[in-house]
Amino acid sequence: MTKRVCVIGAGPSGLAQLRAFQSAKAKGEDIPEVVCYEKQSDWGGLWNYTWRTGVDEHGNNCHGSMYRYLWSNGPKEGLEFADYTFEEHFGKPIASYPPRAVLFDYIKGRVEKAGVRDWIEFDTIVRDVRARDGGFEVTVRNEKTDSEKTEQFDHVVVATGHFSVPNVPEYPGFESYNGRLLHAHDFRDAREFTGKDVMIMGTSYSAEDIGSQIWKYGATSIVQSCRGGATGYKWPENWTEVAGLDRVEGKTCHFTDGSTADVDAIILCTGYKHHFPFLPDDLRLKTANILAADDLYKGVVWNHNTDMFYLGMQDQWYTFNMFDAQAWWVRDAIMGKIAIPSDMATLEADVAQRKAEEGALADDFACIDYQGAYTMELIEETDYPSFDIQAANQAFYEWKKHKKADIMTFRNNGYTSPMTGTKAPEHHTPWKDALDDSLESYLQV
Amino acid sequence: MTKRVCVIGAGPSGLAQLRAFQSAKAKGEDIPEVVCYEKQSDWGGLWNYTWRTGVDEHGNNCHGSMYRYLWSNGPKEGLEFADYTFEEHFGKPIASYPPRAVLFDYIKGRVEKAGVRDWIEFDTIVRDVRARDGGFEVTVRNEKTDSEKTEQFDHVVVATGHFSVPNVPEYPGFESYNGRLLHAHDFRDAREFTGKDVMIMGTSYSAEDIGSQIWKYGATSIVQSCRGGATGYKWPENWTEVAGLDRVEGKTCHFTDGSTADVDAIILCTGYKHHFPFLPDDLRLKTANILAADDLYKGVVWNHNTDMFYLGMQDQWYTFNMFDAQAWWVRDAIMGKIAIPSDMATLEADVAQRKAEEGALADDFACIDYQGAYTMELIEETDYPSFDIQAANQAFYEWKKHKKADIMTFRNNGYTSPMTGTKAPEHHTPWKDALDDSLESYLQV
Repeated sequence: MTKRVCVIGAGPSGLAQLRAFQSAKAKGEDIPEVVCYEKQSDWGGLWNYTWRTGVDEHGNNCHGSMYRYLWSNGPKEGLEFADYTFEEHFGKPIASYPPRAVLFDYIKGRVEKAGVRDWIEFDTIVRDVRARDGGFEVTVRNEKTDSEKTEQFDHVVVATGHFSVPNVPEYPGFESYNGRLLHAHDFRDAREFTGKDVMIMGTSYSAEDIGSQIWKYGATSIVQSCRGGATGYKWPENWTEVAGLDRVEGKTCHFTDGSTADVDAIILCTGYKHHFPFLPDDLRLKTANILAADDLYKGVVWNHNTDMFYLGMQDQWYTFNMFDAQAWWVRDAIMGKIAIPSDMATLEADVAQRKAEEGALADDFACIDYQGAYTMELIEETDYPSFDIQAANQAFYEWKKHKKADIMTFRNNGYTSPMTGTKAPEHHTPWKDALDDSLESYLQV
Repeated sequence: MTKRVCVIGAGPSGLAQLRAFQSAKAKGEDIPEVVCYEKQSDWGGLWNYTWRTGVDEHGNNCHGSMYRYLWSNGPKEGLEFADYTFEEHFGKPIASYPPRAVLFDYIKGRVEKAGVRDWIEFDTIVRDVRARDGGFEVTVRNEKTDSEKTEQFDHVVVATGHFSVPNVPEYPGFESYNGRLLHAHDFRDAREFTGKDVMIMGTSYSAEDIGSQIWKYGATSIVQSCRGGATGYKWPENWTEVAGLDRVEGKTCHFTDGSTADVDAIILCTGYKHHFPFLPDDLRLKTANILAADDLYKGVVWNHNTDMFYLGMQDQWYTFNMFDAQAWWVRDAIMGKIAIPSDMATLEADVAQRKAEEGALADDFACIDYQGAYTMELIEETDYPSFDIQAANQAFYEWKKHKKADIMTFRNNGYTSPMTGTKAPEHHTPWKDALDDSLESYLQV
């Protein structure tokens, strides 16, 4: 009987899994039946923008964390699909930091070409997964028909992402703060903050990028609370770095360095949770946001039940093409072309070694190399098109240097595609002056 | 063997269920084992205020819809517990429209006195309920220990409320609106809107009350979009009623009457969903927000499995004491003191008759009478302390008249308690001038 594979989520990693199976089918291979459940009404995961916050139209957690005016915060040359280049999709070279709509279009282009939309059941949320009878029982709810069903699968691939469920800390005074208090997950339109004094909590990508966005769209002042010390970036004049937050009184933030700021809004850029409410304990990944995730052999196999897989659960320098490497590898494991060790000791040793290697990494450049090498390790065990990973690493190195030099202009640079060797053109307008983030505007020459 | 009863939710209706069982125990009766699962870390349901929006600290849907500065929007004389009066709790008569903190204190007072806190497992979300082997399997997750368990019960009482999961409509232009766009569920601090132009969508309680709140705390202007026609209230000068929304462009709302308004924020007061993500189809209530809910015999028994009950799922004039009437009735049904018909025809005939009666109600006053009579119908079949329901109806009538006369001053009135016969004192400060909503401030003489 044909194996059945359940893919949970039709974002970048879930779609990579569909494309991986479809590419084998296109080569004449006998692939399993693949069913993908997606709780949103369209594909693309986070890249499928929604104005909604909190809950979606069905009353379930809103998946979207994406905001308007978002441009890629890393070079597209680091995330390009090896089997579907930007040049193939757009018919010409494009600049290196595309806005959301452009990347969404690119992601969709590959899977539209592959013809896998029929494999996906939209508006369908996974309620439960149980390991039973050597396989899995997956219970889903179709929110359009408002009805539930349970299906049997031989494999489950969890591709639900981990930048969707916010991690929201509590500080004294939050319960009586007199302004707008939100997590980055609920940030949507920077223009809401034009003319406002805003406190941004955190120092990672969300903090950098949301702060930069509201600066670009005319926030009066930005106070960045950096608990772990200064970021080292050269921020604009109306952007101040302060220490961690101690408490809030009325509209006043008190920081641990004794400084204070009266702010109209507090944006908590405090990260996301690995959150799998549809999974029981024996199938549920628990890991920090790190490069060598816990309990995942080769970064993808659930050690405690090797018929189950997770995609993209690592902290990420590499994204789309790493998801591809994982998806192709998982496909081949499911199809029996790659053997998964059957003893826990071997599985655990693999994870332990990856963790030891991560622990020894000296800096961000070493982290980039490490994840590039991981991506290539998987690719080499599959038929995913190989590419010059050093060229991709190089794009990341240059990106980091450009950010360090000027975080408000780094997106004006172009890099060389590891897939086509083409150097990206400079964008027609500096990022800070490009207020229209539409696909049409971006693709203009 | 002792029966086991699962109560889902420790808000007003769930706590009523615990108190109902405890009161039988106090009279020497042999009660079932009662286990209550509450996903929040404290009891009180909506009355347990949280500054959080979207998701809670565990990444689950945030239950709270309550906002700061909320005062009861109906007279306390309509919701008073017959077995625990306001005078007993506060030791003196208090005014008729208490702020949230005062009502929270009152709700807690009864169950603290009853000593039922040990029956509740906090931070525990119900993941699934299945009818099995003549009873129920209930799977819950303790978010503190991050672990799951499944327990067996003879009965399940769903007391999760239906003002927690927002119903959020979509209109053209929401995806590119340049201001703050939120549902009433995510409204927290009115001072955020001081000096702002705000559009309120809807005409029910949330719209009235949130609009009034932001008016009280200094919003510049309020435009209320009333799709179904004017509310008939006399609003302040800076409050305008307009027609339904047609679309949004930038920050401009276009209404179907041709009027427009540029607004800094849009607050969708568009109601809530009956949402039971933890229930399968065969146990899941689907009903509109009406007085005679679908599929519930006596308004509480799940017709399709009469070992299961729902509390407080009706549209509500009566609240706390109606939940009590339901909880006492359900207790007696579970304890075999009240017989539930075993044939579907009788169950359905009961619902059909209630629906027919609701359909014939001429106005809001008739609705109040109807729900008062329903409450008394249940009370008369139990040992819940009877009270003068006409006096409670009367409090509601007067409330409606006072609102109609002046919706910005109605809370300055006092009514007579149906439990004690005491007329409530006038509050020391008119509502519109009382900016401090604390318990301490309210209880001052």
